[in-house]
Amino acid sequence: MSLQPLRSNLPAFLDPYLPKNKANGRPFITLTYAQSLDSRISKGQGQRTIISHEETKTMTHYLRAHHDGILVGTGTVLADNPGLNSKWTPPTKTVPTTMSESPRPIIIDMRQEWKFAGSKMWELYNAKQGKAPIVIVQDEPQVREPDVTYIVIGQPQFEWGSLLKKLREDYGIYSLMVEGGASVIQQLLLRPDLVDSLIITIGSTFLGVHGVEVSPEKPLNVENVDWWKGTRDSVMCATLCHD
Amino acid sequence: MSLQPLRSNLPAFLDPYLPKNKANGRPFITLTYAQSLDSRISKGQGQRTIISHEETKTMTHYLRAHHDGILVGTGTVLADNPGLNSKWTPPTKTVPTTMSESPRPIIIDMRQEWKFAGSKMWELYNAKQGKAPIVIVQDEPQVREPDVTYIVIGQPQFEWGSLLKKLREDYGIYSLMVEGGASVIQQLLLRPDLVDSLIITIGSTFLGVHGVEVSPEKPLNVENVDWWKGTRDSVMCATLCHD
Ligand SMILES: NC(=O)c1ccc[n+]([C@@H]2O[C@H](COP(=O)([O-])OP(=O)(O)OC[C@H]3O[C@@H](n4cnc5c(N)ncnc54)[C@H](OP(=O)(O)O)[C@@H]3O)[C@@H](O)[C@H]2O)c1
Ligand SMILES: NC(=O)c1ccc[n+]([C@@H]2O[C@H](COP(=O)([O-])OP(=O)(O)OC[C@H]3O[C@@H](n4cnc5c(N)ncnc54)[C@H](OP(=O)(O)O)[C@@H]3O)[C@@H](O)[C@H]2O)c1
Repeated sequence: MSLQPLRSNLPAFLDPYLPKNKANGRPFITLTYAQSLDSRISKGQGQRTIISHEETKTMTHYLRAHHDGILVGTGTVLADNPGLNSKWTPPTKTVPTTMSESPRPIIIDMRQEWKFAGSKMWELYNAKQGKAPIVIVQDEPQVREPDVTYIVIGQPQFEWGSLLKKLREDYGIYSLMVEGGASVIQQLLLRPDLVDSLIITIGSTFLGVHGVEVSPEKPLNVENVDWWKGTRDSVMCATLCHD
Repeated sequence: MSLQPLRSNLPAFLDPYLPKNKANGRPFITLTYAQSLDSRISKGQGQRTIISHEETKTMTHYLRAHHDGILVGTGTVLADNPGLNSKWTPPTKTVPTTMSESPRPIIIDMRQEWKFAGSKMWELYNAKQGKAPIVIVQDEPQVREPDVTYIVIGQPQFEWGSLLKKLREDYGIYSLMVEGGASVIQQLLLRPDLVDSLIITIGSTFLGVHGVEVSPEKPLNVENVDWWKGTRDSVMCATLCHD
């Protein structure tokens, strides 16, 4: 399915929050997700949910084209079978840039529950519309899937700081968009030392108390706030405050 | 403390959602509250929390001036000691209209836990800057407080439809702004038959998972959506969808 055109006032709105190269040894991190008014990112665990309007979907693909990598957690890759490519082509280009501009998918899959083969990501990769993933695993896989790059952590939990450093140094990921899900978002909301931009789309719907919620373990403030008003959604860009 | 001036584009934005007189036997109901990004309306039970910017506080006072009554629940009146008057004066007026334009406070206090005497509302009433409340109680009070009007329900729960009808017919409340708290909001979000306008201010802050949350018992949709962008807050106006 093709994308709606990008709303013309979005590039200027997003520009201050797009990746800049920093000499800090880790990628520029954009934390981004779509939530309902009641701060739910899906109707329930494992239920793929459309929250935002087609125009903010185009925004997501525009953002993806500005990042080297795109990271999601185990819960998301198992629930949503996401494609994670960028279908947005700059207006100056005459041929689609989906293959060249799509970010590299980075999948947290510590216990090797997910398979690349047969996934939406694999279909896109085979159709030359997306890149092959880097998969973060606890132990060396018994069988390595073709085209997949593995990062073996050697223990059940990884530490964000060293994973990010490795992604930059060993894999050339200078900018990383983190799209979810709830557990990953909630960890990173508490890491102003790691997150450079926060972009939240708020869809005008309530998913209700049984939905998958995003709310950090403790209160936190944001700064450099700007809002964009869409047809049905509102988008907030900000940076996390260092206490 | 005096209010900031009303942002000049707010009246046109709010106008479609302001009370209209309807011949349906109940007041026009505006459900309105301020929440954090993570859909919390306070830091914790009993902790009065500033969520919105001074400019959206002015908006609240502007909205109050457009309603005959303003209703809050027991939890709110006990936690926040709210004043519930309107300090907004139309620019065409040369003298403050606080006394004439303030809505009538309507307090749910089934078990008579709250006292008018000594409250912020009482101070404002004595200073001729606010009206005396109507208090909804289960049983006839042993001592009736001076200037308070009581509506005695005769049972532990009231039914919203008949309470609202009574407020219109017996007390001339043709428009009612409902400001909270969580329990009251969550009940009314499920009542598209009663709620005419929904106005939510979203402050750019996270109050965290231990805050008082608003999320309805089941998913629900809104329509006639419009968003206003403030300095730090975004305001959504909408109507609830009838299924
Ligand atoms: N609306 C949106 O923008 C959006 C975007 C993405 C996802 N979603 C929704 O989010 C939901 C999924 O959220 P979720 O919280 O269940 O899953 P998730 O955040 O995608 O993944 C969480 C899992 O990743 C692993 N993990 C995360 N951090 C780790 C660390 N530091 N070390 C080791 N493992 C780590 C853990 O796996 P183990 O438990 O195996 O250890 C953890 O349970 C889905 O319903 C999806 O639809 C919504
Ligand atoms: N940010 C904002 O815009 C905003 C606005 C207002 C309040 N707040 C916050 O909201 C919190 C209070 O919320 P809350 O949920 O605790 O309290 P609440 O909604 O103010 O009041 C709930 C109580 O009202 C009574 N009640 C409600 N509906 C009733 C019915 N149909 N029949 C009989 N009694 C009924 C019940 O009292 P009983 O339990 O005694 O039966 C119920 O526990 C406070 O922290 C306050 O700061 C925030």
